[in-house]
Amino acid sequence: MSKPYVVGIDIGGTNTVFGIVDARGNVIASNSIKTGKHANIEDYIEELKTALNKLIEAHDAKDKIHGIGVGAPNSNYFTGTIEYATNLPWKGVVPLAKLLTEAFGVPVAVTNDANAAAIGEMTYGAARGMKDFIMITLGTGVGSGIVVNGQLVYGHDGFAGELGHVIVKPSNGRMCGCGRTGCLETYCSATGVARTAREFLEIRTDPSRLRDLPIEEITSKDVYDAAIAGDKLAREIFQYTGEIMGRAFANFVAFSSPEAIILFGGLARAGELLMKPIKESMDRNMLNMFKGKTKLLLSELKESDAAVLGASALGWEARPTPPPASAQTILAEV
Amino acid sequence: MSKPYVVGIDIGGTNTVFGIVDARGNVIASNSIKTGKHANIEDYIEELKTALNKLIEAHDAKDKIHGIGVGAPNSNYFTGTIEYATNLPWKGVVPLAKLLTEAFGVPVAVTNDANAAAIGEMTYGAARGMKDFIMITLGTGVGSGIVVNGQLVYGHDGFAGELGHVIVKPSNGRMCGCGRTGCLETYCSATGVARTAREFLEIRTDPSRLRDLPIEEITSKDVYDAAIAGDKLAREIFQYTGEIMGRAFANFVAFSSPEAIILFGGLARAGELLMKPIKESMDRNMLNMFKGKTKLLLSELKESDAAVLGASALGWEARPTPPPASAQTILAEV
Repeated sequence: MSKPYVVGIDIGGTNTVFGIVDARGNVIASNSIKTGKHANIEDYIEELKTALNKLIEAHDAKDKIHGIGVGAPNSNYFTGTIEYATNLPWKGVVPLAKLLTEAFGVPVAVTNDANAAAIGEMTYGAARGMKDFIMITLGTGVGSGIVVNGQLVYGHDGFAGELGHVIVKPSNGRMCGCGRTGCLETYCSATGVARTAREFLEIRTDPSRLRDLPIEEITSKDVYDAAIAGDKLAREIFQYTGEIMGRAFANFVAFSSPEAIILFGGLARAGELLMKPIKESMDRNMLNMFKGKTKLLLSELKESDAAVLGASALGWEARPTPPPASAQTILAEV
Repeated sequence: MSKPYVVGIDIGGTNTVFGIVDARGNVIASNSIKTGKHANIEDYIEELKTALNKLIEAHDAKDKIHGIGVGAPNSNYFTGTIEYATNLPWKGVVPLAKLLTEAFGVPVAVTNDANAAAIGEMTYGAARGMKDFIMITLGTGVGSGIVVNGQLVYGHDGFAGELGHVIVKPSNGRMCGCGRTGCLETYCSATGVARTAREFLEIRTDPSRLRDLPIEEITSKDVYDAAIAGDKLAREIFQYTGEIMGRAFANFVAFSSPEAIILFGGLARAGELLMKPIKESMDRNMLNMFKGKTKLLLSELKESDAAVLGASALGWEARPTPPPASAQTILAEV
C-alpha cells in the first residue's frame, strides 16, 4: 500500500472535525469547521476542501491519502448519502461521498457515527481481534454499531443498528423524538438520565441534593456529581438506568451473542456507577446459555480523537466509485 | 465438485429424519429412526449408521456424499457438539460431528434446527438471493436463524439467534421454560397461543366456541379452527399474538434491518389470520426509517422436506475436521 494516510471526517450537528491519520492510528493533525454555517451543501464542501487541503499540505500529505472515511448522522454506507438528517442544515438526500470524491479525488466511504466508532474500536481500541461485538454510544441519544463475523452490520438498506430505538417499555413508555414511545434512548442517553432525575424528584419525597437545582435544568452531569458525593437518590437514578440498559443488552445478546458490548460517549464516563447496575441487570436477565460470556467494556479510544479515528478507519476500506457489486444490487432493488 | 449428494439429518425430540439430497435440493430418499430409543449416544449412532448406509446403498450413493449437515437443538456450529439439550436423551456435551465423521468418513457440520431452516430457505426457498433476513420458526417454541451479509450469525460462542427468548414483557410476563419471564416464545409459539386462549377464556366472559373444549386441552389448532369458523374471541387471540410478534419484529429490524422476516413451522400455517396482525403491528411499531421496507414472508420450503433440506444445505459447507481456523481461534479462547 503506497499511500500511508487516511482522512477521517466526523460531521456533527455543531462541528465538523477532520484529521489525517496514519496506519497505526496516530492522528497526525486535525482541525474543524462549523457544520451549521452553510445552508448550501456546495458551500460547505468548498470550505471543507480549503481547510482540509491546507492541513494536508502543511503536513506534506499531498498524494499520500489512501481514502476518506466519514461519520455522519443518518448516513448510508451503500449509497454514500446523508438522508433526511434532522440535526444537519441540508435537507433531503445529500450525495456526500460523491461530492467529497469530486472535491478530493480519492475514494470516500460514509457511515453513521456509531458505526464509525465501532470500526475505530475494532481497528485501534477495545475490540481489537474481536469478530463479534456491539458498540453502544451514550450521548444525547443512544447509537449503536454492530459487528458480526468481523463485518459491520449494515442490513439490506444500509441503516441497520438503531439500537437506541429498540422499544424497551411496550406500555407506558416515555415519548421519544422518533415519534414512538418507550425507546431505549429515552431512558439510557444523557438526556434520558436527566428525564429520570426529573421523574424521580417529582414522584418521590426523599431528600436529595438534586432538589437544590432548578428541576428543568438538571443534566446527567449533575446526577453524576450528586451520586459521586453520595446522594442516595442520584445513585438510584443510575441504578434504574443500568437496570433498563442491562435488560436491553440481554436481549441484544440473544440476537448476536457478541463477545463484548462496548460503551462509548459522555455517559460512559460515569464508570462503575453505571457499569455495576448494567452488569447486574444483564446477568439477572440473561438466558442461561449466555450467562457470564459477554464482556461489558468501556471504549479504549481517547474521546477527543475517537470520532476522527473511527471515521478514518473506514477510509482504508473506501473504494473508488461506483460502489461494489453487492451495493449495486441493493441499489437496483430500491 | 465430484460428489453430487449431501445428507441432511434433522434430530428432533421424537424422530430423527435423514435424507439424501442433490445439488438442486431434490430429496432423493429419506427415512427416520426414533431419537429417544437409545439413552447411550453410541447405540444411537450405530442405529443411524445402519439405517443411513442402507438408504445410501439402495440409491447408489456410496462414495458420492460430499458432506453431512445436521440440525439439532442446542447444537454448536463451532464445536460440532450438542450441549445440554433438555429434549434429547443424551446428557452433557455430545461430540456429534466427531461421532458422525467417524461413522461415515465424510465431513459433518452441525447447527441448531432454526439455523438449518435459514440455510435451507437461503439455498432453496423464499430467501434465495437475500443477504440479510431472519428466519423465525414457530413450533412448540420459537426459534430463529439470522443471516447478515449472506452469513449465518453464530456469535462468538456459536449460540447466537435465540430470538424466542427475547424478553418482550419486562413486567408481569409469562413464566418461560428457560426460567425467566416474558420471553417471546411464551406468547408466540403454538404453546403460547394455547396459553393466550386459556387466559382469555378465564378473564373474559364473552361467548366462544372454545368454551366447549376442556380448557387445559385447548391447542393452537383449536384456536385456528375456531377463528376460521368466525369465532370472534379466537380471532382476537391471533390479533393479540400478532401484536406482540409485530412489536418484537420491529425491534429485530432496528438491529439488523433485514430484507425479510420469514415465518416457518406449524403456527405459520395460520396464514393471514396471523400475518395480517403481525404486519399491522410491525408497521405501527416500526421506526420511520425502516417503515415498509422489511417483507414479512412465509417459508417456501415443503414442510415435510424442510428439516432435512435445511440440514442438508449445511452439508455443502461441511469441512473435514479439525474445524476451520476461525473456529479454532474461538475454541482456544473459551
